[in-house]
Amino acid sequence: MIIKKIKELTKEEEEKIINRNKANFEEILPTVMEILKDVKEKGDEALKYYTKKFDGVEIEDFKVTEEEIEEAYNSVDYKIIEAIEKAKENIYFFHKKQMEQIKDLNVKNNGIILGQVVRAIEKVGCYVPGGRAFYPSTVLMTTIPAKVAGCREIYITSPPTKEGKGNPATLIAGDIVGVSAIYKVGGVQAIGALAYGTETIPKVDIIVGPGNIYVTTAKKIVYGEVAIDFLAGPSEVLIIADETADSEFVALDFIAQAEHDPNASCIITTTSEKKAEEIKNKIFDEIEKAERKEIILKALEYSAILIGDLEECIEFSNKYAPEHLEILTKNPEEVLNKIKHAGSVFLGEYSPVPVGDYASGTNHVLPTSQFARMSSGLNVETFLKKITFQKLDKESLKNIADIVITLAEAEGLFGHAEAVRRRLK
Amino acid sequence: MIIKKIKELTKEEEEKIINRNKANFEEILPTVMEILKDVKEKGDEALKYYTKKFDGVEIEDFKVTEEEIEEAYNSVDYKIIEAIEKAKENIYFFHKKQMEQIKDLNVKNNGIILGQVVRAIEKVGCYVPGGRAFYPSTVLMTTIPAKVAGCREIYITSPPTKEGKGNPATLIAGDIVGVSAIYKVGGVQAIGALAYGTETIPKVDIIVGPGNIYVTTAKKIVYGEVAIDFLAGPSEVLIIADETADSEFVALDFIAQAEHDPNASCIITTTSEKKAEEIKNKIFDEIEKAERKEIILKALEYSAILIGDLEECIEFSNKYAPEHLEILTKNPEEVLNKIKHAGSVFLGEYSPVPVGDYASGTNHVLPTSQFARMSSGLNVETFLKKITFQKLDKESLKNIADIVITLAEAEGLFGHAEAVRRRLK
Repeated sequence: MIIKKIKELTKEEEEKIINRNKANFEEILPTVMEILKDVKEKGDEALKYYTKKFDGVEIEDFKVTEEEIEEAYNSVDYKIIEAIEKAKENIYFFHKKQMEQIKDLNVKNNGIILGQVVRAIEKVGCYVPGGRAFYPSTVLMTTIPAKVAGCREIYITSPPTKEGKGNPATLIAGDIVGVSAIYKVGGVQAIGALAYGTETIPKVDIIVGPGNIYVTTAKKIVYGEVAIDFLAGPSEVLIIADETADSEFVALDFIAQAEHDPNASCIITTTSEKKAEEIKNKIFDEIEKAERKEIILKALEYSAILIGDLEECIEFSNKYAPEHLEILTKNPEEVLNKIKHAGSVFLGEYSPVPVGDYASGTNHVLPTSQFARMSSGLNVETFLKKITFQKLDKESLKNIADIVITLAEAEGLFGHAEAVRRRLK
Repeated sequence: MIIKKIKELTKEEEEKIINRNKANFEEILPTVMEILKDVKEKGDEALKYYTKKFDGVEIEDFKVTEEEIEEAYNSVDYKIIEAIEKAKENIYFFHKKQMEQIKDLNVKNNGIILGQVVRAIEKVGCYVPGGRAFYPSTVLMTTIPAKVAGCREIYITSPPTKEGKGNPATLIAGDIVGVSAIYKVGGVQAIGALAYGTETIPKVDIIVGPGNIYVTTAKKIVYGEVAIDFLAGPSEVLIIADETADSEFVALDFIAQAEHDPNASCIITTTSEKKAEEIKNKIFDEIEKAERKEIILKALEYSAILIGDLEECIEFSNKYAPEHLEILTKNPEEVLNKIKHAGSVFLGEYSPVPVGDYASGTNHVLPTSQFARMSSGLNVETFLKKITFQKLDKESLKNIADIVITLAEAEGLFGHAEAVRRRLK
């Protein structure tokens, strides 16, 4: 972990932090392409083969049955079911507000009627990771925006447990949102199934949701065959803390991020050298007590505590373009106004990242590895498209005929010019 | 060219039409990856090498100079400059209307402040094809939405002419919109330059614009390093024509589409068998007179005239998901209401596709090869992102603490639970 003044960082140190643990797709490309090819050609048979190989279980029917869902309800603490229900309501609230902003368009210019109509994508595949742990929250975050957008078919794929079952909380979350089907298949083979379709699993139009490097590489390859949200890498947080920030809270949020993944990256930028020292000490205290100590220690590799004035901290954050940004300063809204790139922002000392992970209502599927420079997180628009239209009459066609004919002929497209000219004869 | 009743199509015929001439990336993948690797490693040197190899010219400095732009103005007919100016105004009008719809969001739920702020992507690379012909219209269509969105740096790359110069109309269009720089480089090497940066050409955040199969494959590979608009294939139109449609107009629009590309696809669906016969005859009359006859004849391979009632025509159009959709029926708006997938729609007999290609104001960079199922065409939102935010106080954190703690612990993320619990102590 680098601890240093921002302006004293060497170019190498800055690049290491900014580039963090960027995924290297190239190495695993051949492996992933082979699995995808198999799924495309052999369908369910390939799914069975790879599920046995990678998940160690034999599965006859990937589709989760009504009975399995009932069983899930009976095996899970009621407190968890209730939490899923409540989280669902909050996530619905925010995504409905997003949806209310989206409207058709109908305007007129030079006598030409112009506009666009909004349509939902029809078939959605949500990838929900599993394996080491299961993430019912990701079911909510991927399916609810699609529901609000009005998508007709929403499918979940998620790896089976070691017993060849669906993870109970995952099944319950899918059932509560009300999806078309849940399939017990994960990894590259699940992405292939959603992209090409198999006997059991339908081909979808868009695949969303996070996954490990294999899943992400598979999404990159099938992009074009289907749409995807974006390529997600290890999770990250950047915290801007001034002298008013509570060092304990900062340290706790550092730990919460680092426990995700040995490749996670946690950057603290602070205006106070004293605070930096305090935060560092608290982090190491907390690590000792942490349940996921081993993971957290590894995540220190791409983490840092950096010191600078507030402008330098903001500038560094914009260079880093974090997935999660916490602003623990006197006037967090003022800082937000200067933020150019981030997935989701957490303002003030009572807004730790975990609230957005589960229950504030914003989405937790967010761009990582600098992709916040160019992409929003998952939102209702991920599942919508806009079809433009135009209507001219003879008069308004006359108004622009010269432009069309001149440019078409300049580009050598004489048939284009002719289609306009002959209409005006 | 298939001429048949929709309900009499065999499965093979239908699949041939629906799948049209889908690009096969895999074959050329190794070639494209090698060029990209070279550009990444050797920068400008690689650009020079490949420009000599593929464009047959030696270029010392890829950046277009002020003098070259002045020269372009002196070498082009004033009528063309004027047409570019007028087209620019119309395209600005429509994209500004799109922009007016996009607003920040700020709401409250359970005491939690939630919202999102809109930010423009900073650095944009627009690829403008060249080679056989040059497309100043594509300069307007790719740069204007980025300008309206508020992008700070907008770069154009376009292949050099045989004399190693920039195409005059392309330079003028870039100058009129006001871009940061224009580079005389095309093909895979241009995409590599924009994705990785070279000594001359800056790395951008998003690459947009159409290109041939090599350019498109390169965009697919660099996706993740940068964002892209989508993968564009050969151009296409589907025309829905009822018994009121003018057969001559339909035939002219067929020709206008087919002249683009030997791989283009033109589908006519009509409610009238008599009309189908008439249209077919007119198409073959027009082909005889067409300037680009050879290209048009080749484009018949993936084209068709199909007959069915209006519902069948609409259903087929939704299966096909065309880039361009012309509706030449008695009540085109009624048909539009039933359209689920299309890039841009042209309503009524005086709205041929070329008006949208140049001057109605809508964008001509549109999804092809069924990608209209999942994607809008280029628009201001291609160049925007939304950053979500949330602000809680101690009270509102208390309101959702149970949900967060329960779900975090269910997912094994104990540090997440702790970050909330300790704040409420």
